[in-house]
Amino acid sequence: MGKSKKKKKDKREENYLVGIDLGGTKVLAAVISAEGEVLATAKAATPVADGAEAVMDCMAAATEKAIDKAGAKRSDVLCAGVGAPGPLDPVSGIVHYAPNLHWNDVHLGTGLSKRLNIPVSVHNDVDAGTYGEFRLGAAKGARDVVGIFPGTGIGGGIILDGRLRTGFRGSAGEVGHMVIHADGPLQQGGNRGSAEAVCSRPAIVRDIRAALDGGRASIIMELVEARAESDKSERITSGVLAAAAEAQDGLVLEVLGRAGYYLGLLAANMVNALDPEIIVFGGGLIEACGKWLMPTIRTVAWQYYINKRNADLIRIVTAELGDYAGVLGAAMLARDRLSE
Amino acid sequence: MGKSKKKKKDKREENYLVGIDLGGTKVLAAVISAEGEVLATAKAATPVADGAEAVMDCMAAATEKAIDKAGAKRSDVLCAGVGAPGPLDPVSGIVHYAPNLHWNDVHLGTGLSKRLNIPVSVHNDVDAGTYGEFRLGAAKGARDVVGIFPGTGIGGGIILDGRLRTGFRGSAGEVGHMVIHADGPLQQGGNRGSAEAVCSRPAIVRDIRAALDGGRASIIMELVEARAESDKSERITSGVLAAAAEAQDGLVLEVLGRAGYYLGLLAANMVNALDPEIIVFGGGLIEACGKWLMPTIRTVAWQYYINKRNADLIRIVTAELGDYAGVLGAAMLARDRLSE
Repeated sequence: MGKSKKKKKDKREENYLVGIDLGGTKVLAAVISAEGEVLATAKAATPVADGAEAVMDCMAAATEKAIDKAGAKRSDVLCAGVGAPGPLDPVSGIVHYAPNLHWNDVHLGTGLSKRLNIPVSVHNDVDAGTYGEFRLGAAKGARDVVGIFPGTGIGGGIILDGRLRTGFRGSAGEVGHMVIHADGPLQQGGNRGSAEAVCSRPAIVRDIRAALDGGRASIIMELVEARAESDKSERITSGVLAAAAEAQDGLVLEVLGRAGYYLGLLAANMVNALDPEIIVFGGGLIEACGKWLMPTIRTVAWQYYINKRNADLIRIVTAELGDYAGVLGAAMLARDRLSE
Repeated sequence: MGKSKKKKKDKREENYLVGIDLGGTKVLAAVISAEGEVLATAKAATPVADGAEAVMDCMAAATEKAIDKAGAKRSDVLCAGVGAPGPLDPVSGIVHYAPNLHWNDVHLGTGLSKRLNIPVSVHNDVDAGTYGEFRLGAAKGARDVVGIFPGTGIGGGIILDGRLRTGFRGSAGEVGHMVIHADGPLQQGGNRGSAEAVCSRPAIVRDIRAALDGGRASIIMELVEARAESDKSERITSGVLAAAAEAQDGLVLEVLGRAGYYLGLLAANMVNALDPEIIVFGGGLIEACGKWLMPTIRTVAWQYYINKRNADLIRIVTAELGDYAGVLGAAMLARDRLSE
């Protein structure tokens, strides 16, 4: 952090950035220094049922709260970047379709900009996460980066020559919808045989449930029930998968191994197509189960690189910034947009 | 082109470009105007058995011949671009590995530059073909282009923001080696289940032969034999496939339909990952059988686009420049390199 610069200024105006991560269950707002340090955050439950205006009010309120917590004023903030579920148009700031939020063509950029009275730019949430890792996390210093974030879906982000690729219609990076297993299974309305259909968390859970239905032994439902008493859910979460794998559950290790194989194919596909320096794997499933997934991902990807020359220079790493990747990346993208 | 500059010159020096396509069977050299018009060409059989020095001598001789035919002098030529089989390093001009030529680490750029005494840049042949279509052919005016060239293999080229993507190690665009059918068939040492393994010409021929071995009726071997008398080959070429399809051969129509489906998945994968404006399909198989392949490619791709918004703006077209795409693209890339 530039300390000399800080000392020179008696007012800190326009020294701060705001990053906001808009999810279907929560909003995370962060105040970030010019150097990319998270100074303060505020969270709120996303009031999905109250509609888009209420969600934008909530985002603005969380932002105000984070600014307060940082001991700053709104006039200290240069701009805000939002990571939102897509498809969306990063130029107009319109979120075209976000099923989790029940949104259709919501003018998020202008709506939030009016509320906060600062420039707001809107980006795909996984693009923002990848950009955060690129600027401040696991991919710092690289120029060509692919981010892959398996979870409920499999989001992706592509950075080439240091610039986020948004594509002709703003929807580049949808790597989870690429078909890697033609004629394979279907999952939740996505593409048959896509990465999401074979190695997202719901695909893993589907395969485990099918095996249980077929009579396979596993401790996983005991783990689900033990957790359900405390957190009232009854789901096979990434945390439950990790606990089962830690306990050497044969079924879970098998299904995670298969998911790692598919994620490795996806990584190799991106290397064969784009030849990046680094692939960053992040998101909930990797945070919980990376210990079992990453070794398989790396060895499968290597086997499928068509060009093995200098292939050891290509790094396949796990994300470093966790929940902060999205807010940091969105803030950096907003500032870059402003300076263009 | 700067016309005022042209008027000032009484000699036409450095007004011409040279493009050279280096294949395993033939060399094609072309003299090209600054505006991208092919003025003269010369062909020669590639003397593979005589080694790399002989091949470079042959390329230089074909170039001299084309310059002569164009009524030009070597001093009229600004630079030469070569499209060569990869993997190669476009920065150093070294061809690392070209099995068709029996080449390992051949210094093609410097070797040819010494012979011709002009700057030579070396590019992947399919990259050059894609760039040719981008600058002067089917993708003219677009900024984000993916080229897919099915034939013996399936080559690819990726242009984003008007710039050819070569990647971290110079091997971007290997779309034929992307896995689209995990655990699918293996073909010629490539990746199991890759596009090459399911929809290249050898994959199509393999599937037809397997069906014939299984007792399926088809006129294709009659067509092969009828042609063999005249051209002494006995192969299921793209031309033979087209003749069988034209004659409504059930087996060939089925296998081409299946190949179109896989090529459509590959196109959709590129759209979901990169969201380009246009995908150009070219190469021998498409030239001969595009009539049967392209409709399936287009409808399958559409079905697998995850973002359907404005998806009708994405064009999937056939290449326009045929054999000239490579020499034109290589020449344009060489000039761009020089002006960087």
